[in-house]
Parts: sequence; C-alpha cells; structure tokens
Amino acid sequence: MPHKKKRVFFFGNGKAEGSAKMRDLLGGKGAGLHEMTRIGVPVPPGFTISTEICSYYSTHRREYPRELKAQVLGALGRMEENLGQSFGDADNPLLVSVRSGARESMPGMMDTVLNLGLNDRTVQGLIRRTNNPRFAYDSYRRFVQMYADVALGIKAKGKSESDPLEAILERKKKAVGAHFDNELSAKDLQELVSAYKSEIKARLGKDFPEDPCEQLWGAIGAVFGSWNNDRAIAYRELYKIPHNWGTAVNVQAMVFGNLGENCATGVAFTRDPASGEKRFYGEFLINAQGEDVVAGIRTPKPIVELNQALPKAAPELRRVSKLLERHYREMQDVEFTIENGKLWMLQTRNGKRTGFAAVRIAVDMVGEKIIDKREALRRIEPDQLNQLLRPIFDQRRKELAHKEGRLLAKGLPAGPGAATGRIVFHAEDAVEWKKRGERVVLCRVETSPDDIRGMDAAQGILTARGGMTSHAALVARQMGKICVAGCEALHIDYAARTLRVDHAEIKEGEWISLDGSTGEVIKGEIPTLPSEVLQVLVSRTMDGKQSKIYQHFAKLMRWADEVRVLGVRTNADQPDQAQIAKAFGSEGIGLCRTEHMFFQGDRIQAVREMILAEDETGRRRALAKLLPMQKEDFKAILTIMGGLPVTIRTLDPPLHEFLPKTDQEVIELAHVMGVPLDILRHKVNVLQEFNPMLGHRGCRLGISYPEITEMQAQAIFEAACELRRAGKNPFPEVMIPLVGSRQELREQKAIVERIARETQNSYGVKVRYLIGTMIELPRACMVADEIAEEAAFFSFGTNDLTQTCLGLSRDDAGKFLPSYVVQGLLPADPFVSIDEDGVGALMRIAVAKGRKTRKQLEMGICGEHGGDPQSIAFCHDIGLNYVSCSPYRVPIAKLAAARAVLAKNR
Amino acid sequence: MPHKKKRVFFFGNGKAEGSAKMRDLLGGKGAGLHEMTRIGVPVPPGFTISTEICSYYSTHRREYPRELKAQVLGALGRMEENLGQSFGDADNPLLVSVRSGARESMPGMMDTVLNLGLNDRTVQGLIRRTNNPRFAYDSYRRFVQMYADVALGIKAKGKSESDPLEAILERKKKAVGAHFDNELSAKDLQELVSAYKSEIKARLGKDFPEDPCEQLWGAIGAVFGSWNNDRAIAYRELYKIPHNWGTAVNVQAMVFGNLGENCATGVAFTRDPASGEKRFYGEFLINAQGEDVVAGIRTPKPIVELNQALPKAAPELRRVSKLLERHYREMQDVEFTIENGKLWMLQTRNGKRTGFAAVRIAVDMVGEKIIDKREALRRIEPDQLNQLLRPIFDQRRKELAHKEGRLLAKGLPAGPGAATGRIVFHAEDAVEWKKRGERVVLCRVETSPDDIRGMDAAQGILTARGGMTSHAALVARQMGKICVAGCEALHIDYAARTLRVDHAEIKEGEWISLDGSTGEVIKGEIPTLPSEVLQVLVSRTMDGKQSKIYQHFAKLMRWADEVRVLGVRTNADQPDQAQIAKAFGSEGIGLCRTEHMFFQGDRIQAVREMILAEDETGRRRALAKLLPMQKEDFKAILTIMGGLPVTIRTLDPPLHEFLPKTDQEVIELAHVMGVPLDILRHKVNVLQEFNPMLGHRGCRLGISYPEITEMQAQAIFEAACELRRAGKNPFPEVMIPLVGSRQELREQKAIVERIARETQNSYGVKVRYLIGTMIELPRACMVADEIAEEAAFFSFGTNDLTQTCLGLSRDDAGKFLPSYVVQGLLPADPFVSIDEDGVGALMRIAVAKGRKTRKQLEMGICGEHGGDPQSIAFCHDIGLNYVSCSPYRVPIAKLAAARAVLAKNR
Repeated sequence: MPHKKKRVFFFGNGKAEGSAKMRDLLGGKGAGLHEMTRIGVPVPPGFTISTEICSYYSTHRREYPRELKAQVLGALGRMEENLGQSFGDADNPLLVSVRSGARESMPGMMDTVLNLGLNDRTVQGLIRRTNNPRFAYDSYRRFVQMYADVALGIKAKGKSESDPLEAILERKKKAVGAHFDNELSAKDLQELVSAYKSEIKARLGKDFPEDPCEQLWGAIGAVFGSWNNDRAIAYRELYKIPHNWGTAVNVQAMVFGNLGENCATGVAFTRDPASGEKRFYGEFLINAQGEDVVAGIRTPKPIVELNQALPKAAPELRRVSKLLERHYREMQDVEFTIENGKLWMLQTRNGKRTGFAAVRIAVDMVGEKIIDKREALRRIEPDQLNQLLRPIFDQRRKELAHKEGRLLAKGLPAGPGAATGRIVFHAEDAVEWKKRGERVVLCRVETSPDDIRGMDAAQGILTARGGMTSHAALVARQMGKICVAGCEALHIDYAARTLRVDHAEIKEGEWISLDGSTGEVIKGEIPTLPSEVLQVLVSRTMDGKQSKIYQHFAKLMRWADEVRVLGVRTNADQPDQAQIAKAFGSEGIGLCRTEHMFFQGDRIQAVREMILAEDETGRRRALAKLLPMQKEDFKAILTIMGGLPVTIRTLDPPLHEFLPKTDQEVIELAHVMGVPLDILRHKVNVLQEFNPMLGHRGCRLGISYPEITEMQAQAIFEAACELRRAGKNPFPEVMIPLVGSRQELREQKAIVERIARETQNSYGVKVRYLIGTMIELPRACMVADEIAEEAAFFSFGTNDLTQTCLGLSRDDAGKFLPSYVVQGLLPADPFVSIDEDGVGALMRIAVAKGRKTRKQLEMGICGEHGGDPQSIAFCHDIGLNYVSCSPYRVPIAKLAAARAVLAKNR
Repeated sequence: MPHKKKRVFFFGNGKAEGSAKMRDLLGGKGAGLHEMTRIGVPVPPGFTISTEICSYYSTHRREYPRELKAQVLGALGRMEENLGQSFGDADNPLLVSVRSGARESMPGMMDTVLNLGLNDRTVQGLIRRTNNPRFAYDSYRRFVQMYADVALGIKAKGKSESDPLEAILERKKKAVGAHFDNELSAKDLQELVSAYKSEIKARLGKDFPEDPCEQLWGAIGAVFGSWNNDRAIAYRELYKIPHNWGTAVNVQAMVFGNLGENCATGVAFTRDPASGEKRFYGEFLINAQGEDVVAGIRTPKPIVELNQALPKAAPELRRVSKLLERHYREMQDVEFTIENGKLWMLQTRNGKRTGFAAVRIAVDMVGEKIIDKREALRRIEPDQLNQLLRPIFDQRRKELAHKEGRLLAKGLPAGPGAATGRIVFHAEDAVEWKKRGERVVLCRVETSPDDIRGMDAAQGILTARGGMTSHAALVARQMGKICVAGCEALHIDYAARTLRVDHAEIKEGEWISLDGSTGEVIKGEIPTLPSEVLQVLVSRTMDGKQSKIYQHFAKLMRWADEVRVLGVRTNADQPDQAQIAKAFGSEGIGLCRTEHMFFQGDRIQAVREMILAEDETGRRRALAKLLPMQKEDFKAILTIMGGLPVTIRTLDPPLHEFLPKTDQEVIELAHVMGVPLDILRHKVNVLQEFNPMLGHRGCRLGISYPEITEMQAQAIFEAACELRRAGKNPFPEVMIPLVGSRQELREQKAIVERIARETQNSYGVKVRYLIGTMIELPRACMVADEIAEEAAFFSFGTNDLTQTCLGLSRDDAGKFLPSYVVQGLLPADPFVSIDEDGVGALMRIAVAKGRKTRKQLEMGICGEHGGDPQSIAFCHDIGLNYVSCSPYRVPIAKLAAARAVLAKNR
C-alpha cells in the first residue's frame, strides 16, 4: 500500500537510514550524506525525501502522497532531538537548508533555499545564539530574498524590469553609501527584510509566510517543481538524463561558515581533477557562505592556505577527505563548512575529471594498491582517452565563456578536441587563409569530398547538417580534426558569408571555438592546449620519460593489451594516417578506401576522364594514368604496416561523386577536358541518382567496368611484389564492397586472382594475400553462408548496414533522429552505437552462417562503429576477430576491447 | 569416359532412340521427331546430335569429341539401310537436311542446310530417281547457295555490295528474261551452279566441296556455330534463354514437296492459336518446299482447301494431327510435307497461342475430358490473362512493322497491353492533346506525381529511366495503362521535343506504338483491338452470354477460387480502381495510398500549405482543409467495398515530393501562396534529401507531425461512422508505414485509437477496425516479435524491403540491373519477383517471429510483387493470408494462387 511506503530517510549523529547504494532513490547528494554519516564523518543532521515523490508531485497536480507529511514531521522531530533545537522556536531555532539532488549531478539547474525557519521571532533566537545581529539579519535577508524568488515566484516580469527585491537592495545600498552587501549594517538589513515583505505583500496580496512549516513545504514544493523548469529540461536533453528520474529533496540543518574569522566554507578534491596529480586540491573562503564562493565577490584562496587560517580544522578536513577517498576507492569532490572551528561535510561525490586525470588517477591507484589493473581499466571510459590525444581547451577560459553567454549552440560531438579559429565558409578560403598564417574553422551546411583540402587546412569543422557519420564527421575523425556536425540551429548564408544562430550573427573572419568532445559552439577565441601523448608517440619531439601522461597512458594500454581478445586495426587511406595508427599500436589496416586517394593533387582529373570516357578503351587510357599513383600509395602504406594485414577496398562510391556539382564547374571541366559542354552535361545528368546510397556503386561498378577492378588489383599487386622483391613481407587483403550475392564476389574475385597471378609471375615472387568482402547489406547477411564459400574474410560495413537495415540515410536522418532518441523511440543514435536489435541481429545471423561454411573465417568490422566502445563490446560478444577504427581511436578501441572482456567476466 | 558417351540418337521406321522426355538433350525439334517416330507417325528417318556437343564444340576450338564421327557415320548407315539409298551414291543418292533445334524454339535465329549430299555426280541420280532435271538442278542450285552462305561464309562484304551469289542469280534472270526463280530452266539452273562454284573458288581459293561427308561436317559445324551468332545471342538475352543450353543438330532424310502437283508442304495447328477455337487451322502450298512458304513469292492456301487438292493425304494429316494432340494432351503446331501423295511429318510442338486461346483451349479440353480442371489451371501462365484484359495489337500488323524494321528499342514490359498514339513529352500536352481528340503516348525520362493527369490522358507511357516498379510502372499498372519503362536506349530532348534512338529521331506528334507485354517500342501506328472480358465485366456494354471469352474466363476463375488458399486483395487509391477490382472479385483493398489522393484537383495547394506552414497551428489549419476531401474519398471507397476490409496507409512519401521542383515553379508557388520567395526557397531546400528513400518519410512523418496522422485517422473514422450510421458495415484497417520499432507503432497507434474512440463516441456508433503495420524494413523483420505485440496485422511492403535488403534503389537500378540478370548475378529482377534468398529470408523470419507473438496475426503483401505469379507462389509457401495487387492483376493473382496450391500438391 503506497501510504505505508518509506518516503523520508533520516541521517544524523552517526546513524543513517540510507546509504551509498541508494543513489536512485536518494539522489547523488542524498546518498553521499547518508553514507558519510554512516562512516562517522561529521555531517549536519537532516533527511532526504525520495525521488519517487518528485514524479508523484508532478503527475498529481503538485500534491503529495498522504503518508509524506507525517514522515517529514517525524524526521524533523529527530533533527530537533539530535541538535537540541526546535523548528520555529524563538529561543533556539532550528534552521535548515532545502536542496535538490538527482541521481546525476545537474549543477545549478534546480533551486535551493537556505536559512529556512527564520521569521521575525526566530531571528531573535539566532541573534541570541550567535550573539551577532548583523549575521542574523543578513541570514534573514538572504532567506526572504531566496524564498521569494524560488517559492513565491517574485521575479522580474520582463527585460525592462529588474528583479524587484534586488532593486530594493540596490536602492538601500545607494541610500547608505554602501558598495557591497557586507557594508550594510544589522539595521539596514532589518529594514531591508521589512521592505522585502511589503513588496511581496503588494505583489502577491498576502503576507510572507512566518510559519516555518509553511515555509518548509513551500520550499520542498519549489525544489521538486524546479525539476521541470526549462533550464533543467534543456540540460537533461543535452546530457541524455531521463526525465522520469526525478530529483530527491534534502532538508538539512544549517551550519554557518560566515559566523566569524574561525569559520569558513569551501570545496576540495582529493586529487587534482585536471592533471590527476595526487595532491589535495581546492578553494575556501573565510567567514563566508557557500553561495559567496560562486557569487565571485571575493576571490577564494587555495586550500593549502587553510592550514594557516584554521590550523585545527585543516588537517581534520584532509583526514576526512582521505578517509572518503579510501572508502569510495575513488577520487572525491567534497563541500565543507567550518563553523566556529568545527568541520562539517555537506557533500561528497566521485570527482569529475579530465581524461588526463582519469588515466593518471586510475594508474596511480593501482600503484597505491587501492584498486587492481582490471578495476583501473573499468574506471576509464574509453572516450576519455580522446582528451589525451587532442588539443583541449583551457577549462577555466571555457567556463568563463559560458558565463559570458557566448555559447551559441550545441551540435554533435563528431570530432573530439578543441579548436579555435576565424570562421570561413568555403574550402578554398580555408586553404588560402591558412597559407597566410591564419587559424581557421571551416563552416559548411555539409561537406563533400571537394572540401577535403579545406578541411585539412582548418583547425576545426562545423556543419549544420549530417550525423555522427556524415562526411564531415567521418573525414574529421580520420584526419584527427576537431568537428561539430549537424548543428541544426545554424543558418549559413554562403553568399553573405555569415552564420546566424537565433539573433546572433557571426561574419567571416570572426573568431569561433568548437569543443568537439561536447559539441559546443562558442563565440570568440578560447586558448587551447596541445596533447602531450601525441607528441611523444608520433612526433617524438619530447623525451618520453619526461611525460607523465605518456607513461600513464602507455601503462594503461599495456594492461588493455593483456586483457583484450579482439584485434584492433585502423581505417587509414593515407601514409600519414597509417603512421599514426601504427604508433598507437594498430594491428593492421582494416579499411583503406582507395577512392579517398582519388582526390589528391591532380588525380581527380584522370578520375573524371575515366568516368566520362565514351568506351572501355577510353576508360583504360585514363585508368593507366591512375595506376602508378595508386601503386605508390599502396606501396607507402604497405611499407609502413610491415607484415601486418592491410585491407584495401576496391572502388566504392557512385561515380557521380567525383564529378563537378554546379553548372559553373561543369562548364569549367568541359573547357579543361576539351569535351563539348552538352555531352558533358548529358553524362553528368545520366550519372545522377535518386538514391545514391542505393545506386550504382560498390562491386556493381567493378562488375559494370571490370577494368577498374583490374587496375586497382594491378596497383595493389605491383606494389606488393616490388616490396616482396625488396625483401619485405607485405600482406594485402583485397576487399570487395557492397556484395549482395555469392556470384558478385566470385566475378570480382576471379579478376583479382587473375591479376594477382599474372603480376606475381611477371615479378617472379609470391606474396601473401587474401580476398574477402564487406558485409554491409541485409541480403549479404541472409546469404552469408554462400558468400563465405568465396570469401577469405568478412568485414562488417556497419555504416551502410545500419542505413539499409533501418531504411535510414545518415545524411538525412539529422532532421528527426535526435528527437527519436529524445522520445525514446530508439535507445541511441544507431550511427554511433550499433543498433543491436536490428543491425546486430543481422550481424549475428551473418556470423553464424559465415562460420557454418568456414569455421576459421576471419571477421571484423570497419564501419565507424569500430571505434565506439559500446559497439566494440557487442563485436566482442558476437565473436568477431577484430575491430577497425580511425587512427585516433585505436587506443580507445583497445581499452573498450579490454573492458568488454571484463564486463563478461565480472 | 567421354568417348563412350552416346552423342547421336537415331530415329526412323517406327523406332527411335530418343523420346519426348529427352528435350534437354535432343532439343525441342529433335524430341518431337523421335516421339512421333515412336508412336507410328510417318517421319523421314534421321538422327539428332545432342546439345552437349554444341557446348563442347564452342569451348574446344570448333572440334568434336573423338567418339562423334563414328556415331554419326553409324547413324547415317542406318538411314541408308532404312531408305535403300546411299550417301554420295550416283544412282540413288541419300539427301539430307541439317537443322538446328534448341530446348526452346528460337525461330529463324540459327542456320539450316537443305538438299545436302548433292554434287555433280549425285544430281544425276536425283534426275534419274525423279525423272525431273529441272527439280534436280533447282535443288542443287539452292543447296550450293545455302551451303555457301551458311558453311562457307560467302556473304556480302559491306553495305554497298549485294550477296555475290544472289547477284549472279539476278544477272542470270535478267539474261534469260525471267521475273521469278521458277521461270528458270534446268539448263539455266545447271549453268548457275557452275557460275556459283567459280565465284566460290575465286573468293575462297578452293573448290566447293564435292564430297557429301565433307559437306555434312561443314553443315553440322555451321549449325552448331550459329548458336553463337549475334542474332541468336541477342534473341536469348531478350527472351532469357541461358547461353549454356546449346542447340542440337538434326540430320534428316530429305522429302520433297516440290516434285509436282501431288506434292505439298505446309504448317498446321490442331486448334486456332489466336482464338483457341477447336478447328484445324493452317496453310499449305502445292508443289513447293517449306522455304517457299516463308519467302512470300506465292500465297499459301488455307488448310481446308487441302481436301480438294490432295484428297488422300488431307484426311491422313488431320488424323495424324489429332493423334498428336491426344498424345501430347496439348494443342500441336505441326510442319508437314506431302511427297507424291505421301504424308511426312517434319515437326510437332506445343503450339504458341494468345492468352485468349490459352484460356479457351484449356477450358475446352476440360469439357472434352482430355485434361482435368487442375491441369487446366496448370496450363495457363497467369500473365497470359493479361491479354484478356488489355487492348492488344493486331498481331499481323505488328509482325509487318517488325519486318519493316520499325522496332526502335526494347524497354521493360511494365504495363501490359498495346498502345498506339502520337508522342508528346509533357504531361500538360498529353492532357491538352487528348482534349482535342488525339490519342497520345506520353514519353518522359521518368515520371513524377506531377505527371499523373498526363499519364491518365495518355494511351501509353514510355520512360527512359526507372525499373518495373518505378513511379511510371506502378501508376500505369494501377491505372491499367500500357507502359514501357526504363528504355535506356532513348535520348529525350525536352526542349527540342524529340526522341532519339541511335540515329532515328521521332518528333512530337509522330506516331509511336508500345507493346507493354513485351517492352517493344515501335515507330508508327499499329491498330489495336479491345479486350472483350473487360467490357463484359466492368462496362456491362455487352451481354455476358454472347462473349465466349468471358464465359471461359469466368469458368477458369471459378476453378481457381475453388483451389486457392491465399486471399486476393487489391491496391486501389481511388473509387474507380476499387470498382474495377471489385468486379474482378477482389476480396478487399490491401493498400490504399492516401497520398495519391493529394494530387487530385486543387488539393495539392492545401498539401503544400501544410508542408510550408511555420508551426503546428499553420499545419492544422491546412490539414483542416484536406480533412473533408480525404473523408469523401474514404467514404466512396468504403462504400464500394461493402463489408470487405479496406487497408488505408497513413502518409508515406517524404514531404518534398509534394513541392515544386524547378525554380520557376517555386517562384510561381511563392506568388500563389503569398509567401516571400527566399523563405519558400529555403524551406524547399531544407526539405531536399540525399536519399529520399531512406529519409524523413513513413511513420517518421506522423511522429514528427502527429497532427497529420490525427487528420487522416479522423477522415477514416468519420467516413466509417457515417456509413455505419447509414446501416453499412465498413471495415477500415489502418496501416502505419515504414515502422522499424515497436515504439514507433505504439505512438502512432495511440493517436489512431484515440481518434477512433472520440469519433465513434461523437457519432454514437461502433465500427469494426484494425490497426497494423507495413513490414518493409529489415529491422522490422528482425524485431517482428516485438512489433506484433502492437500490430493486428502485418503487410509486407516488398518494394521497399527489396530496396533496403539489396541496397538497391529501384529508380536507379535500371543502369545495371538488366545486365545483372543477363550475367546471372541475380536470377531475376528482384523488383519483379521476390528475391527469395534475401528478401524472402527476411520475410520468413518476420512471419515466424510475428506468429510467435500472435498466432492469428493476419499477414499479407502489398508490394508490387503481390501481382507476380512467382512471388505469389512464394507468399503461399510461407503461409501469408493474402496478396494484394493492382486491380487489373486480381484475376492473375487468383490463378497464380491456385497454381501455387497445385504446385505443392503435385
């Protein structure tokens, strides 16, 4: 029966009805208070109203279940008993704070009321108890103002009006010649309270509640109600916190850090949350309330100075903090108040940290025997490693930008890292501006292969359309570029060279900053810091021994390598990408897209000649020009990868992708190629497709034009044979894309095998090689047993498999997919994490059928999901042999692969 | 061991080594000759060289297996023995014909040699035997000319040169003043033989072979070789005859129909191949060789006149023909020769016939107790019924057009029937020209919904792009329009209003004819004949009893209804379509596409307002205008279908399909709607999609804009409630498209259920209804068990399921799909017949999972495959409840459904 259910959980004096395990019910803050109380940490007594009440409240027209009132009053009674104070008592009044506390921290999003319980009678008791009228009236004044705002809704009514109570305060300060609040006397403050109350009465037509119980229920309702304020809803949508979780409410006895010079308030971390260094870290203010730290009136002091200021409380704080870290076996972020020399803890939680700190803390804790290696691997979210590899923002400067209201919009965090630069809207401008030494951010509605050079020149890439695996996102991650994609709020005007978000406008050349790890788009410049790990690993410009971060990183990677079962390869099309991946310990290349090479230098010219040729002879002539270039590319990549497998995919995209798009470009091309314009136009038109994703592409090209496959095979095998002759041991794996039937693979395989034979014969050497296929069509999954008869390996192309399985174009899904995820119609963006019920089910069928035919069939994944930790866990579960991901995600994939093993063995 | 294998099969004098069952090995002609011999029909003796030799010959550099020579000589010996003649003998020479004969008839495609065995010595024997020097030299002259052409390759070398031997003949005729060959004397002919031989020696540098054995091997090689001539290859590609079948070679003793007035030659059918009437039908020539019938020098006489001409042989021919029909239990097509009053049969085969004849013959044969009802159903290919329902070409006039070289190109036979009219290139022109009484054929690169009125006005539709289920094909079949789609050879120039095929050009207004049953596009007008069945069924303009065809058709349909298990519904969007389908006995509507209604009249205006509205209020305003129109549509259709289920699909296509395409149209629309041009342009641009097929469509629209689903549900239920109140019993089934997850269906279903409840309450009635979903995404198949928890029915949308399963856009596949089928990469066009291994495998999974959740789940198919006999058989096999197809295919589907049962029970 609901009215018998426990809704209120008391804590105080070493006893607590809740614990750390009851986070869902008590919220993060509540669970922390109960747990601290339980293990003997000094915590002011209080009680938590469970998160269940929040849902009840909002679905029952702001009413509570019947049993709540008695339970709250009971808990209040225990507080009074515990403290020897009494709620509403004129002599020794109990004062409380009322705070929110959801399962996940949502800092600053919901409401808080402090000093509750004060009225014209109890304020006298507070004066008597503290012997400090100014403090008492200051507390009273703050309470009335806060309560009026939060519980009574006394706020500015429009932009023209300022907050009415704030206005009264300002007038008062002016009247007495005070600059700051703390220059007001007890009398001034007392008068202010009266003035506030009059204003409230004038506005609401009723008195400010003097009854502390009325105050309490008003504050509780306000805090529960604030779960559904616009800010909180928006925050939850951004951070994917379910709306039905609700918040708990914590009612706790007040302690005061502002009673005098032996009082203080502050926050502290048990380790440095930015670097992870093992040092007590934090800030405090003497004679202040917690709110003063945030208000920015006085500058907080570093925690080391607390020793001097409060030599008795300071070591106690360190002792308690250390105790909490040991207890939670995790770095803690605590809030404390020191009242008349006595330490009180008001909050503890696992501290948020940068990726750097996450790695260092986990590795250090293994050294300190607090956790074991496996736990260290479990502790680090693979994506956190991103931070170690990318430039990052100076965090304090970024927070400042937020405070200054410079956040423009949020898009998809498509390419992690921090980028800041002048905005340009055209790829050519990016190239040109970079030449003259500018740092630029390239902003496009969406990018196309034509933009590649511009993307390469830019610090970061910002697009208004496209998802996590859009062209921009994919290329950016592969290039290691910072990218925010699919930021739908942007209105780009190419002609005017401006960007509009709501009413803000950014012109070409103005500064903009992108956080590719969060998707934030911020106006203005924010300084960035480089990644040390990358410098050590790749550039070797720093002595590896000097870099702590590198050492921790390397250690973690070793542990991951010991544990993981899945192989980790990389998607790399160019030698520099292969180099980086190799440095990160990639075990081969899982996807080398030959067509990306087509855009380099003047090759596109030969490619276009090939496409526009009238017949096979013309195509062969153009292909002959491409052959030496492709061969050199393959040679360079095969050389870098040594004896490791290099999976090379034959031409995949539809041919029109290589042709000019606008009429102007077609005219220019006709001129350059010396082809009549109408013939070129006709050809370009004929090649257009309604649904290019489902069109004439993949192996369908090689079947229509076998000479293309021939040329590519020849480039691969000539490269391999030349290396073999030079004593190397290259290992190409030729991969045929978009295969839907055994016959398609058989035809293409026959061509590759013939060229391999002929080339080896003519060079007089033997090279190791395999011929296999991508599995990226539902049909391929259904007939995987037949396909496996021809294939030496399968590589799941989960990008296309997701598009076909869900009937969802990744380039078009941006319009509705985000709201699908928000509405819970899909658990996550299927282009980010494998849709296990749909795409995953097809993969399971393909794995089973493939292995039925060929027990030792090598299977991997080369879609973008190969770098997504959740998807990697799935790949581990279904028994793939390897994942392949962009070079910068190799460490992430390794860690995720190790964690997949640990998750199974838990 | 291969050299022991039997390669040569003798027949003669009542004994045959082969039989009708050995068609694959002996070819159709060969099997017929053996079988006839076997059952005592008079057949000149001979032997058949098996089809296996054809493959051997072409893959072994025109050599034969070692054992062949001896087997041929052995068979030749048996012929000599049989006839008392001798090959190469100067006194009583054996003369033979050498003819091709593949498994399927390929008339006129391969080579034939007659009178083989003649030389300067044996011609004397022939003169002695026949006492007819002119006949003997005529035969000799024909043989040399034919052999020179077929076996020696003496042909015209270019366009300027005429056939060299033909030229000699013409010169001779001129020299002696003869108009026709038969005016030449024995001496003239003898001189011609000499002149031929000199020319041959001059051209080849060697003599014409005098040795009959050399002649024989030369002819055999030529016939085998002709399997791979260009004409034969092209024919096989058009008619999907596998290249690896090969032809057999039949060597048979010559009999002569040209020895005098008691000789004749002819062809006959045991029943009328056009009407199916039971009457002996055929043509003959007195004193002629078979070739003369074809040559068209003399006009053949109708077979009834044979009685008078040859009163002894004529009844024998009828007796033998009847015997053959009874023996084969099928209408036979025979070739015969009467030599000096004696009848010889040279060929028998099942006669080709029109759809009309197929139905009549099968039904009559049941009456005659030759076959049973089930066999009758088995006898008729469902697609043959098409002919009974569509206008057809006057077959003789069409053949004439072919002979005149007026065949322009072949496209996909997308809408069966015959259409002839003046060509127009714009939908508006079609409408306008029709108004002024013209019959027009609308020719487009591809059609779009904008073209619908033009398509309706046209006799036929011709497109250069798009497959069997492209917009043009789909709409055409639904409208019952003749359509040839995806005819890639066409070059359409809209601006010039011309159509080019190779070098031929057709201008607007010129006549063109389309055979939508074969895909042929023919220049000029060809008269058409109307369908009687349709007139009786729908228009009731003819007394049903008067129409034999209708009676036979109706009988066949009754038998099909008795046998079939599958239900047959129709896809109909408009009342007139529903009416036709109902007349054909459709058991409900399986797919009513609400969006097709959007293009009628001025509705598109309201649709565009809805799409371009700034917010929900604007959308609701526009939707309110559509509501009464949709309601009236539904009411009309529900009324026609009585109590039968009517499956109505909510809005499916992406919204941009309803917007104008060209800039000019956008400008006009902006003007009409009073919307600023740049805002409209922006909106149109924003709605564009890269892959519309995989975009914002189907239930995704209803989820983004629930008010659309609301309006449609309201239209459906208001229509149903009003009918219910009028005492009718409407049965709407609301179908949600493109569902990929249970949650999507649940959201949309909740809306429909709410509206259904509210509407029924407000009308105060109850209506029967179901809510279900289309299964058209691979993901839906994978999670069909979950979806079935929400769905009362599944309807497989196999068009889209094929596109997603194979990753194949039906609108883009035209470029490579035909060659895929030809190359054997796919067994058939997957948009025509369900790809059983891929799409079918997904369907099987969905059926199993769906029934696991809901044992009685109603399942059907509403993709275009629902009208394809092969796919219908598959649907029967996997246990669907019904198929739904375009109205005109309802009879076809019924027959196919019955045949599916019979195929299983065989």
